[in-house]
Amino acid sequence: MIDLDRRGVILAGGGILAAATMGPAVWAAPQRKLGYAIVGLGSYGLGVIIPQFKNCRDSRLVALVSGDAAKARRVAAEYSVPERNLYDYKNFDSIRDNPDIDIVYVCLPVSMHAEYTIRAAQAGKHVLCEKPMALSSAECEAMIAACAKAGRKLMIGYRCHFEPTNLEAIRRARAGEIGKLRYFRSEHGFVQGNANGWRLRKAMSGGGSLMDMGIYALQAARYMTGEEPIAVYATERTDRSDPRFREVEDMIAFDLEFPSGVLASCMSMYSANQNHILLMGDKGRIELEPGTGYAGNRLWVGQGRGNEITPPPGPGATQWAGQLDHLAQCVLTNRTPIVPGEEGLRDLRIIEAIYQSAREGRRIALRA
Amino acid sequence: MIDLDRRGVILAGGGILAAATMGPAVWAAPQRKLGYAIVGLGSYGLGVIIPQFKNCRDSRLVALVSGDAAKARRVAAEYSVPERNLYDYKNFDSIRDNPDIDIVYVCLPVSMHAEYTIRAAQAGKHVLCEKPMALSSAECEAMIAACAKAGRKLMIGYRCHFEPTNLEAIRRARAGEIGKLRYFRSEHGFVQGNANGWRLRKAMSGGGSLMDMGIYALQAARYMTGEEPIAVYATERTDRSDPRFREVEDMIAFDLEFPSGVLASCMSMYSANQNHILLMGDKGRIELEPGTGYAGNRLWVGQGRGNEITPPPGPGATQWAGQLDHLAQCVLTNRTPIVPGEEGLRDLRIIEAIYQSAREGRRIALRA
Repeated sequence: MIDLDRRGVILAGGGILAAATMGPAVWAAPQRKLGYAIVGLGSYGLGVIIPQFKNCRDSRLVALVSGDAAKARRVAAEYSVPERNLYDYKNFDSIRDNPDIDIVYVCLPVSMHAEYTIRAAQAGKHVLCEKPMALSSAECEAMIAACAKAGRKLMIGYRCHFEPTNLEAIRRARAGEIGKLRYFRSEHGFVQGNANGWRLRKAMSGGGSLMDMGIYALQAARYMTGEEPIAVYATERTDRSDPRFREVEDMIAFDLEFPSGVLASCMSMYSANQNHILLMGDKGRIELEPGTGYAGNRLWVGQGRGNEITPPPGPGATQWAGQLDHLAQCVLTNRTPIVPGEEGLRDLRIIEAIYQSAREGRRIALRA
Repeated sequence: MIDLDRRGVILAGGGILAAATMGPAVWAAPQRKLGYAIVGLGSYGLGVIIPQFKNCRDSRLVALVSGDAAKARRVAAEYSVPERNLYDYKNFDSIRDNPDIDIVYVCLPVSMHAEYTIRAAQAGKHVLCEKPMALSSAECEAMIAACAKAGRKLMIGYRCHFEPTNLEAIRRARAGEIGKLRYFRSEHGFVQGNANGWRLRKAMSGGGSLMDMGIYALQAARYMTGEEPIAVYATERTDRSDPRFREVEDMIAFDLEFPSGVLASCMSMYSANQNHILLMGDKGRIELEPGTGYAGNRLWVGQGRGNEITPPPGPGATQWAGQLDHLAQCVLTNRTPIVPGEEGLRDLRIIEAIYQSAREGRRIALRA
C-alpha cells in the first residue's frame, strides 16, 4: 500500500531517512483524518502550524492545550475546535481519555519538550515535537524511550525534509549533478530583536542561536551530504554586554568533518540576517538562498547563479502540510517517520559537541 | 606632492596599509617611467604582467630574466626590450650594472622568491615579489632584511589592493554601511587541472591550494576587517590517492578570530571552482562574487543581492597597472608601499599557523 517515488526515502550513511515523499497516488485513502492536539499557542503553534491544517489531507486540528484559557477559547472558536477539547497544563494528562486526539504536536519552549512529549506518550498519543528536540541528549533519550515503551510514534518538526527546494537540492546532489561533493556551507541567522523572549533565556531555550537557527545548518549539512559528521570544531563569539546575550550565545561557527572527505562550514547567529546553503562539488555547485525560509526559497545548480531551478512540488501543499500528513500517514500505516526522535537526538549530540568544542577550544571527535 | 583621496590609505589595527589610491591629480608628474625587469616568463609573468605595461603611467618594461634564451628573445622582440637587457639566472646579478632597471618583479615559483628578491636587492634594485612571498616566514624575514640593508623597496604582488571592487567594499565596510561587522567568509578555489605544474610540487610551491588560492581569502579577511587575527583553526581534507595531491593539500578550511569579535570562515580548494567574499554586519551584508578575479568582479551591498554596486575606477587603468605604478611612485617619492614585505610576512606567519593547526587538530593562538 506504500511506495516511494524517485525523491523517496534516502538511506544515508548512518541509516537516516533524509527525505521522503509518499506520493498521494500510492497511498491507500485513509479512513479518517487523524486528530492533532496543538500544545502551546505561541507564535509558531498559533501563527504557523494551526493555519496549516486547511492544507492537510490526512490531518485535522481537534484540540488545543494552553495555559491561557481565554486565548484557547478564542482560537478554538476561530478553528472550530469543540470546547470539550481544550486543555491546560494541569489537566493535560486527561487527553488519554479523548479519542479525538491521535497526535500531540509539542510547540512549546524547548525546556518543556521532554515533559510534554513523555506525558503525551504516557497518555497513549503519538507525538510531533518541535526542534530542537530537547535541552540535552539525555532528555532526547528519555523521550525516545517513553514513546517506545508506550508503542507510539515520535517525530521531530524538521520541516525542511518536506520543503521542495531542499528535496530537489538533495536529489540533484545525490544524482551527481555537481560531481563529487567536496564542501558544504550554511549560514543561518537573523537579528534577534526580542530581548525578552524565551529564546534568550537559557533555562528555557537550552542555548542561543545554535539551538534556534544553527540547527538548520547542522541538519542541512547532514541531509544534503547524507553523511554523519565524525568531528566538530566550533568558535563562539558573543558580545556579553549586549542585553540580549546575557545568557545565550550570539554567534557560533562550527566546522564538521564527514567521512567522505566533505568539509562543512556552518555559521549560526543572532546578530545578522542570513539564510544560505551551498554545496560544492568538483563539477559545480548547488546553492539555496534563502534555503530554509517559510517561503520564497530559491535554488541554483551549476556554476554560479546562472541556472535557477524551480523544484517540483513537495509531498504536501506546503512544507507544514507535508510534515503533518507524514506523521498521520506513518501512524495509519505503522511506519517510522523519516525524522524520528533518533534524528533529533543525533542533532542534540552534535550540538552538545559543538558547545563543548567552543568552550574548550578544541576539536571534538563524534561517536559513530 | 602627495595626497590621499577618500579611498586613501587606511591604517588598520596592526598598522597595515590596507588600500591606497594615489590619484593622478595629486602626484607630481614623474620625470621618467621607472624600468621593470620581469624575472620569470611563466604564465603569470608573460601572460598577465608583461602585457600590462601599456596601461601604466609610471612604469615600463625594460628587461627580461629567463632560463629560456629563445623565449626571452621572442618576448623581447614583441615588447621592444633591447637584447642587451636580456638576462638568465646565471648572469642575473649583473643587473646591478644596468641603470635601465629600477625594479625587479619576481614572477617565479615560490621556492625561488627569496633567492631572487635578495639577489635583486643586493644588486641595488627595488623588488616587487609575487605572492605568496616565500616558502616560510623565515625566508620572508631574510628578504625584508636584505632589502632594508640595501635601502631598497620591497612590495608583494597583492593585486587586490588595487582592484576597484575590493577597494569599494573596504570603503563601504569601514563607512559602517552594514553596521557592526560580525562575520566574514571567503572561499577561493579552482579545479586544478595541471597535474605536472610546479604548484603541485611542494618543494617549489611550499604547499597546495592555501599558498595559491587560500591566501586571497586570508588577505581579504584582513583587508576587509582591517584587523589582525588572534587565533586560527584549520582542517585539511585531501584525497591522497588523487595524483594531483601526492605532495600538497587540496582543501583546507580555516577560521580566524579577530579582536573585535568578528569571525572569519575561509575555504581554500583545488577541487572546486569558487571565488567569493562575504561580509556580514548587523545591518546588512557586502558580497563579492567573483571577488578577486582578473576581471568581472561584482559587488552587492545591502540585504541579499538586490543592490549591485558599480565601483568607481581604481588607482590604475587595471589592477596590475595600479600595482606596477604604485611601486614606481613609492620609489619616486620614497614612500613605503601599501603592501610591503611585512604584509607578505604576516600572511606567511598565519599560513604557517593554519598548517600547524590542521596538522595538530587544535586552535593556534597568533602572536600580536
